[in-house]
Amino acid sequence: MSVPHIVVVGAGFGGLHAVRALAHLPVRITVIDRRNHHLFQPLLYQVATAGLSAPDVGYPIRKLFHGLPNVTTWMAEVTKIDRATRTVTLHDGVTVTYDHLVLALGMVTNHFGRQDWARATIGLKTLDEALEIRRRVINAFEFAERTEDAEARRAMLTFVVVGAGPTGVELAGALAEIARKTLMGDFRRVDPAQARVVLVDAADRVLPAFHPDLSKRAWHDLDAMGVRVEVGRKVVNVDARGIQIGDEFIPAATVLWAAGVKAPDLTKTLGFETDRAGRVKVGPDLSPAEDPAVSVIGDIAWFEQDGAPIPGVAPVAIAQGKHLGKVVAARLAGKEAPPFVHKDKGALATIGRARAVAQVGKLHLTGRVAWWTWLLVHIMSLIGFHNRLSVMLSWAWAYVSWNRSARVVLQAPLGRPDAPPPPQPVSPPSA
Amino acid sequence: MSVPHIVVVGAGFGGLHAVRALAHLPVRITVIDRRNHHLFQPLLYQVATAGLSAPDVGYPIRKLFHGLPNVTTWMAEVTKIDRATRTVTLHDGVTVTYDHLVLALGMVTNHFGRQDWARATIGLKTLDEALEIRRRVINAFEFAERTEDAEARRAMLTFVVVGAGPTGVELAGALAEIARKTLMGDFRRVDPAQARVVLVDAADRVLPAFHPDLSKRAWHDLDAMGVRVEVGRKVVNVDARGIQIGDEFIPAATVLWAAGVKAPDLTKTLGFETDRAGRVKVGPDLSPAEDPAVSVIGDIAWFEQDGAPIPGVAPVAIAQGKHLGKVVAARLAGKEAPPFVHKDKGALATIGRARAVAQVGKLHLTGRVAWWTWLLVHIMSLIGFHNRLSVMLSWAWAYVSWNRSARVVLQAPLGRPDAPPPPQPVSPPSA
Repeated sequence: MSVPHIVVVGAGFGGLHAVRALAHLPVRITVIDRRNHHLFQPLLYQVATAGLSAPDVGYPIRKLFHGLPNVTTWMAEVTKIDRATRTVTLHDGVTVTYDHLVLALGMVTNHFGRQDWARATIGLKTLDEALEIRRRVINAFEFAERTEDAEARRAMLTFVVVGAGPTGVELAGALAEIARKTLMGDFRRVDPAQARVVLVDAADRVLPAFHPDLSKRAWHDLDAMGVRVEVGRKVVNVDARGIQIGDEFIPAATVLWAAGVKAPDLTKTLGFETDRAGRVKVGPDLSPAEDPAVSVIGDIAWFEQDGAPIPGVAPVAIAQGKHLGKVVAARLAGKEAPPFVHKDKGALATIGRARAVAQVGKLHLTGRVAWWTWLLVHIMSLIGFHNRLSVMLSWAWAYVSWNRSARVVLQAPLGRPDAPPPPQPVSPPSA
Repeated sequence: MSVPHIVVVGAGFGGLHAVRALAHLPVRITVIDRRNHHLFQPLLYQVATAGLSAPDVGYPIRKLFHGLPNVTTWMAEVTKIDRATRTVTLHDGVTVTYDHLVLALGMVTNHFGRQDWARATIGLKTLDEALEIRRRVINAFEFAERTEDAEARRAMLTFVVVGAGPTGVELAGALAEIARKTLMGDFRRVDPAQARVVLVDAADRVLPAFHPDLSKRAWHDLDAMGVRVEVGRKVVNVDARGIQIGDEFIPAATVLWAAGVKAPDLTKTLGFETDRAGRVKVGPDLSPAEDPAVSVIGDIAWFEQDGAPIPGVAPVAIAQGKHLGKVVAARLAGKEAPPFVHKDKGALATIGRARAVAQVGKLHLTGRVAWWTWLLVHIMSLIGFHNRLSVMLSWAWAYVSWNRSARVVLQAPLGRPDAPPPPQPVSPPSA
């Protein structure tokens, strides 16, 4: 076969759009991803908070490329990349050679080197983590209902979210709504509204990537929803008992970690220039200076424009994936690759019902208008007609009923080792 | 508190309807279930075969009893029952005393004492099992795509279903549709239609609980869909390599076990008369002769009418749950309990698109008419408005697209110990 072989590692937003853009060129493409599904990460927090089911935000990668005969999909994990021989090694030892390699790995949760914090908290990067968060949150209320130890109940019903970026804000807002609205009247001994949601960040405001006015509004909204916002506070320690923030210890059974991301270890092994988080420095052609046979796109790319790195968000990954088609087309034609130019598409974050913030250029939206914008943008961006309808249905249902349609705990029945220990002592029910 | 305390163990169809019927009496009720959700078991096979998401067939038990103030829900596992002291002991050692105990435990998978068969197969009684089946089926095709070992691929793409009752027939039919329709065109090296689905039963026909004419039609439908039906064949052995049926060994990576059920071990400890499967013999008042303070309903009850045991199906469990309200009401009023009378509501089983069988009294339906009846009955029986709409949406989508909306594998990313071993050798993709 004489056409070039392009290997794309990762089928997130960047990888997906790269493949779609590249597939129309005279190349053959192998997509490698460790999961069978493309994940619509912006709505992952809704799976964690029982608003959506896992298939609503996952779409089979294989199905995405169904109609592209020059695209082969492999569910496998890349464990090694050798640039000298242009080979990629998979988890089972198989090697794949490439003419061009596209790295679109996405980021992983960063616990800043604290393995103990990683164990004591849970991040939100995968469907498995989302379902584990759902399980812990629902089980916390179940266990709280059965304990008579007020202190244990208080810790069980304290949910701490570390990191006040969009994911942290969205998680905190959804948890507050679950406690105050969704679960109302479902319990006999415990009052779910007594649950505390604490949002912590070392930065001096929530949503630091947004305009300060919007941060202020988001803080106001969170406060109105009952979330305790602790900004400008540093996490000193986290363990199974709770979290130490500055000089205050907050007993908490559930600490969600949305505080930072880093590039997967694989990127460190490539010999490319990287920033502190491991992002690979790329030029206008989206390749590192060290190797034009490699492209790096999406969150793991460190791309500077006007002297500053552009943000690691979905619209950037999508734009870079699309641009890669032009880069490779130009190279195949023996021409110079057109430079990637970042255009800010704005930013959106939701806080709760009828509460969101949006900025598009100098336009700032808040409240109900921003919320409807957020809903619309996310429905439009979802992949698959069924997923769009299903998400709309769940949202419409949640809107009229305050209920959440995915309050089902899947994994770890009682007694399995990964179930959290029930609080003691527990007493029989009495009237 | 002077009103009697009724403890209901199990919130399946029997327990759910018992609680609803009892809640209007002057009693207080504690419902104990090890899961947080009521499971709509008739559609569980669709979760396993990626047609529905888990929350579609699960409903929070707590929410079901939301509006009944005298009902308390506990997520806990009953480990011991002491009839002498009328106490129930939970997994964490807590004891609950009852005035009346309702056992609605449901059945567990029966491997006829073969622990090794239990390990080599997977049953379909819980959402966790359904998702594990989904994972194995989807992963089998993924691994088959990567192997060049024809023998390994053949084993990987052989799905054996043991047990040709409704669940086995529904699983086999759905697997055949996945291979021949859903996955068509999604793979580059493997042809999913080459997958083999084998349905095995020791009985001499499929759906032995149905009229022989309907069994014949179901066999015909399965055959037309490409399922190899092996009735009158006994399973001799099952291990990780495959299954021995009579004198034929079929190499198969996935063996689904729908061959039998038995009562949970707890029922053995009660000192009641039981049948071979552990069902507790009950009289017309749904209590065992040995103890009127206990009621046993649903699949674990052995109730005879006209000299034969009535079947363990959802409509019977529902009817017994409802009847229990009358029994307890009568007893509270010092009257004799009215006898439970079983009325056959008929039986339904689906095989595939536009293929089903139904019998209601002497009326037999097949094909498209039976299928629409099946769809309608199941939609109507589902709990929750959102779940009904969501299931309808998924079915409508599947009907127009042949796609299945839940083709997402959640658990066990590659490299986790519970992932099946990928077949060896695997070679790099070539054109």
